Amino acid sequence: MSRSELIGQIKSKKSFLCIGLDTDIDKIPAFLKQYPDPVFEFNKRIIDATQDLCVSYKPNAAFYESRGVKGLQSLIATWNYIPKNCLSIIDAKRGDIGNTSDNYAKAFFNEDMSGMSFDAITVAPYMGNDSVTPFLKYDGKWVILLALTSSVGSKDFQYLQIGEHTLYERVIQTANTWADAERLMFVVGATKSTEFTNIRKYAPNNFLLVPGVGAQGGSLEDVCKYGMTKDCGLLVNSSRGIIYASNGEDFAEAARAEALKLQQQMQAELEKAGII
Amino acid sequence: MSRSELIGQIKSKKSFLCIGLDTDIDKIPAFLKQYPDPVFEFNKRIIDATQDLCVSYKPNAAFYESRGVKGLQSLIATWNYIPKNCLSIIDAKRGDIGNTSDNYAKAFFNEDMSGMSFDAITVAPYMGNDSVTPFLKYDGKWVILLALTSSVGSKDFQYLQIGEHTLYERVIQTANTWADAERLMFVVGATKSTEFTNIRKYAPNNFLLVPGVGAQGGSLEDVCKYGMTKDCGLLVNSSRGIIYASNGEDFAEAARAEALKLQQQMQAELEKAGII
Repeated sequence: MSRSELIGQIKSKKSFLCIGLDTDIDKIPAFLKQYPDPVFEFNKRIIDATQDLCVSYKPNAAFYESRGVKGLQSLIATWNYIPKNCLSIIDAKRGDIGNTSDNYAKAFFNEDMSGMSFDAITVAPYMGNDSVTPFLKYDGKWVILLALTSSVGSKDFQYLQIGEHTLYERVIQTANTWADAERLMFVVGATKSTEFTNIRKYAPNNFLLVPGVGAQGGSLEDVCKYGMTKDCGLLVNSSRGIIYASNGEDFAEAARAEALKLQQQMQAELEKAGII
Repeated sequence: MSRSELIGQIKSKKSFLCIGLDTDIDKIPAFLKQYPDPVFEFNKRIIDATQDLCVSYKPNAAFYESRGVKGLQSLIATWNYIPKNCLSIIDAKRGDIGNTSDNYAKAFFNEDMSGMSFDAITVAPYMGNDSVTPFLKYDGKWVILLALTSSVGSKDFQYLQIGEHTLYERVIQTANTWADAERLMFVVGATKSTEFTNIRKYAPNNFLLVPGVGAQGGSLEDVCKYGMTKDCGLLVNSSRGIIYASNGEDFAEAARAEALKLQQQMQAELEKAGII
């Protein structure tokens, strides 16, 4: 999905919501266990209930890998089920030397090889250029590079001062020499909303994937105030707050209700910014 | 496998060789294609031919993930086949917020969940403490944290100067507050052999996993000269130079011959250092 198509979806759905499919088999409603693939059944019903309200789905690879072959089958089935008008992101945080990243790219971008072809992948920056560029060889696919994350460990390295800049600023500056905003997004945690003004100095046009609204305490209003661009420029993710809104048979309806709340707030923000 | 057991294996086998199973289905001998799982068949024969010469095997997750479900089945079969007296390392470069890293730990350390329980995993440091510590909850398992890698991209961030230190020095210093040398190793590329003296200031006792000898140009002699400790403290990895030594029916014998050359050089270094 190209940048212009993504912006089109945002305007059409009046939403920049990404729903994180961090689907934990121990947290889904018990009645789903009767299905051959309970995790896929859960994801399918979440997608059915929310696809008009969001522009992206983001399965978190770890939750599938933890279940071995069965988990991978759930992931492949989920990828297949994500509607083509939604940006499919695999949250995988990969990154290794060039010929290894080539293989990670096959794993997530080459359907003939692996059974999956996501639109985008999250990538870790530590190993530098050759760990990131293999993912950019695939036309129309996106790299979403970790910049400033939302958990406590982000303080360990991301804020270290290198001359006039922090490490996360250097990551953004350097990565923007590898690809432009048509192919490159950054992960910026919503709990850092006051940092968004600063981040926009270095990434004025890139889309930012923003986790941490809701469960992790970030404010949607602040994210928009400091981070929104004329093209929106934001994909705000919510995972647990939506998918685990209820643990009963009504889980999909409850998820829709939570997604709808966010979509309505997003619509108001898009209107306020004159984007729609 | 504990540190003392690892040191015992090194002394007994007179080797600190780790063999990287970066097994690419397009590079293995054609005759193996007749087997139901050609990649496992290849790995099995490599392991049969080399297990007395090395102390560790390190499958690279990307090469298995790129083949989807079949690849994961090859990886699980390979893990099962690695002898218990060899340290099994999954080269996965994972790292995410706490509850996600919990799931990556299940994927690679919890056999009941995923079918695999490696002794050690490579982890990326960018997201800090909570991305690393979930792997340390498993008694007797190791984290092998990226410090200074061997490819060209290592220059982008790892050498950035933070006050008196480089980023990779800060990674080593900080991570050594999370775990001791019984549970924590670092990845240090062999192409950086002159850096080993410096690294030993910050990691005097940690084992270092050293890729890049051979195909990537690093010198075993220099790595030992600057990096070896009284306990050896080194696991030197070779992947392509061993496993692809021949593309014919003699590939396992050819792999053994290459592994034997390295083991003999390692024996000489261990003797020179008075370790054996």
